Parts: sequence; C-alpha cells; structure tokens
Amino acid sequence: MSAIRYELLKTEKHTGARRGRLHTPHGVIETPIFMPVGTLATVKTMSPEELKEVGAQIILSNTYHLWLRPGHEIVKEAGGLHKFMNWDRPILTDSGGFQVFSLSDLRKITEEGVHFRNHLNGEKLFLSPEKAIEIENALGADIIMAFDECPPYPADRQYLKDSLERTTRWAKRCKAAHARPDEQALFGIIQGGMDKELRRQSAEELLELDFPGYAVGGLSVGEPKEIMNEVLEYTTPLMPKDKPRYLMGVGSPDDLFEGVIRGIDMFDCVLPTRIARNGTCMTSVGKVVVRNATYAKEFGPIDPNCDCYTCKNYSRAYIRHLIKCDEVFGIRLTSIHNVHFLVKMMENIRQAIDEDRLLEYKHAFYESYGYNM
Amino acid sequence: MSAIRYELLKTEKHTGARRGRLHTPHGVIETPIFMPVGTLATVKTMSPEELKEVGAQIILSNTYHLWLRPGHEIVKEAGGLHKFMNWDRPILTDSGGFQVFSLSDLRKITEEGVHFRNHLNGEKLFLSPEKAIEIENALGADIIMAFDECPPYPADRQYLKDSLERTTRWAKRCKAAHARPDEQALFGIIQGGMDKELRRQSAEELLELDFPGYAVGGLSVGEPKEIMNEVLEYTTPLMPKDKPRYLMGVGSPDDLFEGVIRGIDMFDCVLPTRIARNGTCMTSVGKVVVRNATYAKEFGPIDPNCDCYTCKNYSRAYIRHLIKCDEVFGIRLTSIHNVHFLVKMMENIRQAIDEDRLLEYKHAFYESYGYNM
Repeated sequence: MSAIRYELLKTEKHTGARRGRLHTPHGVIETPIFMPVGTLATVKTMSPEELKEVGAQIILSNTYHLWLRPGHEIVKEAGGLHKFMNWDRPILTDSGGFQVFSLSDLRKITEEGVHFRNHLNGEKLFLSPEKAIEIENALGADIIMAFDECPPYPADRQYLKDSLERTTRWAKRCKAAHARPDEQALFGIIQGGMDKELRRQSAEELLELDFPGYAVGGLSVGEPKEIMNEVLEYTTPLMPKDKPRYLMGVGSPDDLFEGVIRGIDMFDCVLPTRIARNGTCMTSVGKVVVRNATYAKEFGPIDPNCDCYTCKNYSRAYIRHLIKCDEVFGIRLTSIHNVHFLVKMMENIRQAIDEDRLLEYKHAFYESYGYNM
Repeated sequence: MSAIRYELLKTEKHTGARRGRLHTPHGVIETPIFMPVGTLATVKTMSPEELKEVGAQIILSNTYHLWLRPGHEIVKEAGGLHKFMNWDRPILTDSGGFQVFSLSDLRKITEEGVHFRNHLNGEKLFLSPEKAIEIENALGADIIMAFDECPPYPADRQYLKDSLERTTRWAKRCKAAHARPDEQALFGIIQGGMDKELRRQSAEELLELDFPGYAVGGLSVGEPKEIMNEVLEYTTPLMPKDKPRYLMGVGSPDDLFEGVIRGIDMFDCVLPTRIARNGTCMTSVGKVVVRNATYAKEFGPIDPNCDCYTCKNYSRAYIRHLIKCDEVFGIRLTSIHNVHFLVKMMENIRQAIDEDRLLEYKHAFYESYGYNM
C-alpha cells in the first residue's frame, strides 16, 4: 500500500488548475500547496509553532545537507526528522541530486552514481540512487524523491536524452532500494530539459514504474519563464490525473500562479526566507525592501492588508532598524511575513479554484503586486 | 510624584538579601530581579512573547546604541520604546555613559560632557548629562539612569575622586534636565572605584539629590570578584532602605547570588544571550557547551531539570547541529534557555528569601552548578 493517497476534488472550469487533498502519514494537505524549505532541519529563523501559525502544512528538507550535517544516522537515531526538529506535520525530502549538481565541484557522473566533493570541506563523496534512498529512509519524510540528474540549461539534445534515460534507470534502482514504501511515498522526477519529445519519453518511462507521485524536475534552472510555462503546458498532461504533481524549486508568486494554472499541485522554494534575509518582503502592494531609508519613519506594518504576527505587531521602521543592525529578530519577522504571504496566497488560490475564478484572482493579484500581465 | 514606588517586603534573616516589589508605569516587578538586555530594542533573537514565556519582568535597553541607530527621535515618533519594540512591560535604559567609555575611541572628558567618536563610523559625537536625559526622555523607559563616568580599573585615587565629584555634578544636571519625572524614574549611580571612603562620599552626595533609586556603578570592570563583593559590602549599607538598589552590568549566577546577599535588588547582563551565541548553556548541572562534539548523539534536553520551551522540545543533538551550521534557530533556542535559567534562578532566590533559606539554596545551587565555594 502506498504511504499517501491523493484525492482530486475538482479541476477548475477555465484552467488546468486542480483542487486536491493529499493524505500522508503526518496529516492531510490541501493542494495546491507551497512548501517552505527547511534545508538543515530548520526553516531559517522560524520555529515549528510559527510555521503552523502562518499555516504551513508541509515543509521540505534537503537530503544532501542533512547527510553532510548532522548525518542521516544521527537523525535516524533521534527518531527521524520529524522528532529531531519537532515538526509533526508532513515533510518532503529531495534526493540530493539537485545539490550535487548545483553546489559541488569536480563531479563525475557514472552509471553507478555521482562522485563529487563536499561543498563544505572538499572531501570526496559518492551519491547513488541506493545511497540517496538509504539516507531518505533514515530521515523518514512522508514523501521522498528519487535520485535524478538535473541537467544544466541549456544542454544539447543527446546529453538530455542520455541523462533522462539514466534518470529512469536510477528511478528503478531507487524504487528497488526503497525500504519503507508503506511509510514514505517515493516520487519519480520527469526530466528531458526543454524538449517536448524528451519530456514525453521521460514521463512514459517513469509512469511505467507506477510511483505514487511525480515531479517535474529540471525547471527554474535559468531558462526564461515563458519556456518554463511552455514545458509545463506539455508536461503536466502527460502526468497521471490521480496522483500529485510537484514542480521542484519554484516559488515566486507568478511562477506559483502559472504552475497551478497548468495543473501543478505542489511547489517548494527558498525564496520567501532567502529574500527575507536582506529585508525584502512580498506584500499585497508589491515588493517592499524594508531596509531602504525610505521606510525609516514609516510606522505602519510591512503590508497594510496582512494579518500575520509581524504585521500585527511591528512597524516598517522597527523592522528596518533591526535589519540595518543585523539583528536576527528582524530577519525572523520578515521570514514569518514572507512565508505567511505565500501560504496565504495559495490558500486564496485554492478558494479561487473552488469558485472557478482563478484567472480573476490572478489578474487582481498581478495588478496589486505590480506584475506585467 | 515619583514614577515608581518600591515596597520592601522583608529582609532575609541570615543575609542582607531583600524581597521587594517595584511598582512602575508598566507593571509591578518582584525583586530581586534579573533584567535581560535588549541593546538595540531587541533581546537578541527573542520575541517579546518568548521573553514573557520565560518570565522576564523587565528588560534593559541601551541609550547609546539607540541614539546611534535608529535615533531616539524615530523611537519617540514611533510612540516610545515600548511601542516601537512591542514590549508592554517595564524597561530600563542606561545613560550611554558606560558605552562611551568602553566602546568609543578618542574620547575627551570635559566638565560639559564627553567628546568621542561613534564606534560604527568614526563620526564625532558629544554626550552630556542634558543630552543623555533628552535621549532617555525620548525613549520613554520606566527607569532611566543618570549620565555618569565609569572609571577604569585600576585607577588612582585622585582620578576616582575627581571623577565621582563630576558624576555628582552631572547627576544634578540630569535631574534638572529630566522632563518626565512623573513617568520615568531617574536613578543616580554611585561611583568611587574600589575605595571605601570614595564610595561613601559618592553615596552621600547622591543621596542628597533624593533620586527614586540608586545604582552601584563601576563594578564588574575587570576587578577580582572578591573585590566586587567587598565594595558591595560597604556600599549597599550606604544606600536608602526604601529605594531600589541596582548593580549595573552584572549577571553570572554567582555574581547574582553574592549581590543579592549584599542587598542588591536589580541586575542586568548580556551574559545569557552572549554565551548562547556560541552554544554555551547554563544548566542545573553546570555549563554545557552544546556545540561540542560530545553532544552530537545526546538526544536528551540541554538541561534535564528545565521546563523551558527549548528543553521541552529539542535535544542537545539538534541544537548542536543548528549551532554548528550557524542556523539562527539554534541561537534562539540557547538564548531562550539561558534567559529562562537566570530568570528562574532569581525566582528561586526570591522564594528562598521569603523562606529565610537563601544560603542553603546558594550552597545547593553552587554544588550542582560546580562552583567552588
């Protein structure tokens, strides 16, 4: 039996957007959903209670980082990632594949796996489908990802084809290595770059393996947004209707809208916490770079239309002061606000799907946020 | 009318320890009390809610730092420090005197005040009794401190005498400049170095000015602990019984015990949050440097006898991992624990005074904490 169960509640009348419900060992997730990223078993600066208060239903953690520090054996010994970090809602772990390709130096890809150097100390390491799954099994997330190759953009067609075929062989090995299928749902990752036929080939090969969910990988790697949207347009129809669809590493507001419209159910991105660290906030009136001098004497909240902890209790002037002084509490306040912003936006998106007015909501959002349409 | 009122509830049978109650515009403080330090209008990493949860009754903020950033005028415009930082309990601000002498370069002391350079950008600045009070009036703390000179240790007798006499003249000017005596209680600061006669002179001169509270300044500046205790022993008897007594900048557990025993009511120190930042925790079984490798696989709490948020929910292994990875949430957890530790210790001290068993409690504490007695 699969560890998860996806219920498709409805498809929006005017777009490909889906309202669903994902049942996991640690609770039910309403989709589409944005997953805040807790790379090292912590969503930077925030407590689990604060994550719950802003409405986060599931978080993502990074296998590669936790493998290096503190080591998956320690997390396992602690009783798994949920217990280790005091988070009792669902968790998804990636496979480390993306980090191996984006962070590490001197990598060498073989059929067996990837040789590379630890980005912290240069130590030689090796990650394979079996090793990635061993680590993910030890971490114990509700949803785990197959070990794939995420090719660069641009890449030539032959490279992409070889790479996706290896990703399929690796996906098979991941499935075979997976020791806890009743407790952790293993997702396959569709690759194929920006090539329609290769995306189709990848999807077909992976669908044969019958994973309980599928991700679209290899996007948001430097390609123009129109290309990402185009790839989604022809890739999501290749994915099963009765399983969750996850677009990896994507999370700006417009990307979330465009992904949802094309039938994506799950997203993750470091964006809200990363931009929070330099004092940039997403608001109902567009981006506010609160560290700018213009906010020194603004005693209203970051976002006049927000009811998060930060906006209820603190002024732009105070938060600017904290950020300018490198005070951690400032980053905490902007992180809370930004994660709340995206979580709340997804809540609004779900309601708009329920009411078949997603495009209206999108237009209203883009107008107030200041996006060009 | 004074902004505060001190009730002496009792003096302990076997020591000079006092149980009291300090009524301030923002609430009642049970004394003796430890005040966590929020230098820049934030107790580093912690929210006001977390400070309340650990039982903090009053915090200290630094006039010098807030004058430089964000500027007292901005805090005033925000509605005062309480509103600016979302803290509705009492606040005490120092006068900036200590920072001028400890942080800044090229200072020149004149009768009028102190010329010095901003420690951040080298800009020339001038602080005087009138200026310090103007800033403190703008910040709006419940208790404000007179602008004094904190002489170095050691210093020669003539210097100390000249300095304390100037501090008296400055204290008069502070009192004259104080624009909000009904809302903010101005404390005088007794100086005189480690010299008994000079402490007496300073106390006598300041008592004539009839401040609503008095501090012992110029201690914990590098002198041996026995000398500090000796100075307290002859200084606190010179202080009024019906007014609060504040020992500035002191906060290690043994210093708190020794100060309380000698009749001190109020303490402040950056110690709990400062040591938290490198992963050092005060516990019922002594200091735990949680970043050490020995804790990598310890899945129990930092302190087995602690009921703070950190100890109820997180393991030594998790906190070590966070601190090793420079994750802010780790420092937040150790800060919460350390502030809770001192606040709780003072709570226990108050109860021990109520029950006339302070020395017993001190001995038991020292034994488990590992102090030499």
